[in-house]
Amino acid sequence: MSKPTKVEIAFMGMGNVAQAFLQLLARQHEWVESMYGVAFKTVGIATRRHGSVVSSTGIDLRDCIDVIEKDAHLTTIPDCIDAGDAPGLLDVATPDIIVETIPLNPHDGEPALGYIRRALDKGIHVVSVNKGPVAFAYQELKTLADLRGVQYRFEGAVMDGAPVFNLVEYCLPGTSILGFVGVLNSTTNLILGGMESGKSFEDCIDEARRAGIAEENTSYDIDGWDAAVKATALARVLMGADVQPHQVNRAGIAEVSPEHLIQAAAEGNVIKLIARGHAVDGGVLLTVRPEAVPISSTLGSVRGTSNVLILHTDLMGEVAIVETDPTIEQTGYALLSDLISILKT
Amino acid sequence: MSKPTKVEIAFMGMGNVAQAFLQLLARQHEWVESMYGVAFKTVGIATRRHGSVVSSTGIDLRDCIDVIEKDAHLTTIPDCIDAGDAPGLLDVATPDIIVETIPLNPHDGEPALGYIRRALDKGIHVVSVNKGPVAFAYQELKTLADLRGVQYRFEGAVMDGAPVFNLVEYCLPGTSILGFVGVLNSTTNLILGGMESGKSFEDCIDEARRAGIAEENTSYDIDGWDAAVKATALARVLMGADVQPHQVNRAGIAEVSPEHLIQAAAEGNVIKLIARGHAVDGGVLLTVRPEAVPISSTLGSVRGTSNVLILHTDLMGEVAIVETDPTIEQTGYALLSDLISILKT
Repeated sequence: MSKPTKVEIAFMGMGNVAQAFLQLLARQHEWVESMYGVAFKTVGIATRRHGSVVSSTGIDLRDCIDVIEKDAHLTTIPDCIDAGDAPGLLDVATPDIIVETIPLNPHDGEPALGYIRRALDKGIHVVSVNKGPVAFAYQELKTLADLRGVQYRFEGAVMDGAPVFNLVEYCLPGTSILGFVGVLNSTTNLILGGMESGKSFEDCIDEARRAGIAEENTSYDIDGWDAAVKATALARVLMGADVQPHQVNRAGIAEVSPEHLIQAAAEGNVIKLIARGHAVDGGVLLTVRPEAVPISSTLGSVRGTSNVLILHTDLMGEVAIVETDPTIEQTGYALLSDLISILKT
Repeated sequence: MSKPTKVEIAFMGMGNVAQAFLQLLARQHEWVESMYGVAFKTVGIATRRHGSVVSSTGIDLRDCIDVIEKDAHLTTIPDCIDAGDAPGLLDVATPDIIVETIPLNPHDGEPALGYIRRALDKGIHVVSVNKGPVAFAYQELKTLADLRGVQYRFEGAVMDGAPVFNLVEYCLPGTSILGFVGVLNSTTNLILGGMESGKSFEDCIDEARRAGIAEENTSYDIDGWDAAVKATALARVLMGADVQPHQVNRAGIAEVSPEHLIQAAAEGNVIKLIARGHAVDGGVLLTVRPEAVPISSTLGSVRGTSNVLILHTDLMGEVAIVETDPTIEQTGYALLSDLISILKT
């Protein structure tokens, strides 16, 4: 048996998603390592709340989980060196792969975008769940990654762990994506569903907040900005469009009233925040807005936090992927599947 | 630029699906060839109605399309040698890849199963749309393929070109499939939909026959045998089960009356022929039977010839793939995607 290749991993961000990934990796690493002939070593962790550390000897994943659970500082882990802040990690460490999950600034994708650019430029693979950098700068980052011979992967950016980007890359070879339509934002879907069952808009928002689904700034979800950023990411990656989130023809759900929902139901419809993209001369036209869709349709069938993406293709007709009731574990899985994609090549 | 690798292809079966693939390949072969650094050469075609031929110099795909359209004999193509019957092709030719689409005997998978076994044993890759050999002998054929260092691929066996087997293999690495539920048979879905709108069972069957969707022997569809064979194929490949189609707990749609459909609709439901598989101690329990499902569910949302497969996984929760209104072109695409999978490795 040949000796496993050592793969050094560093984490930027250690919030809920990264922790879910860490739990998954702690459970699955032996399988992944033996399957792909590798041995993982965690050489750095950068966080906003728990400090940033590096270690040349490797950080035990269980130590890391313990420290985060105790809300302690990462420097309390044995044999770790304080790396200062998050960008400081990139000054002192050059891992093979960075797992990036830092909080998103939805208006320009920073600071994640800058960190990803810098990591790729240093010849480091990046796996990320951040939609911002994809929506604002996918082509630039992809070109940089290709130039440095590394991969930039982000399966979790749009539909948690449900395959979207990998679906097209691995399962629909040779097809062109002509357009798409989807329900991409969980918070608005949960709110509209709650309002259908007679709850008030405000009660529904509170519920989404309590469930930990809504973004800190709920207007980001409600005004359709989250869906617009996701639609832009899809248009850039799947359709090669050079488009910005602010160019999306966007309307949120604030104007949707209980009367609208009752009227829709009477017509066999349900109101969803629908994201659409379709190829037009010289680009892709993107819209995000509340639409009445038949309750008996695939779009109409997603409830609660579930989401759906329907792809219109040239060779494979119309194919949809539906993710039912995703949790944070599924977003963690997106990172694992991206990690495996890198190990495979 | 390095010289392209020559890839020799032979066809077993030249019905609608193979012709759709041929049309697709005629349009796309330059793209595929340049993408994967190969040059295709068609070295043999075996059919039931148009004879079987081989050619060491290569058969022009347009000549082949012409002959089939004119309903002529394949030996009228220049520079072709008569190979006798279909198995005769395997006596005289050893292509790199066989594209197998011969008519299915649903009760034992023959003669396709025997041809596939023989081709794999000769070290020939096989791409196929036949569900029978998968449902009756997947493990045996996969073991043989591995032993000979070739691939046996069959993406089109269950859901035309919609990724099912490739979805799990390429996009859900490390996950275990715990179960599945789906609407897998187009004919019964079309019939039940027609009956809902007030047509008679017999009129709906005629319609499905005219649309070219129903199998020659419609009882094969109506009695749930087609769905049972597909469910068995899924259980074997995705869940490692050693199970036979006749072990499926099976009921068809013959007993579904207009009254049942009206009653279901009154309760917000719709009746579909549902295939289910779930892991039990020591195996997989498979059922195919008409079930009332909510019209507002993903299962209930597929109309006409559309189909859906929902996978229950350990790490990725519940994920579904929906194919809307597939045509023969999508089944042709399944063969193209399988061909590309082989070229990639």
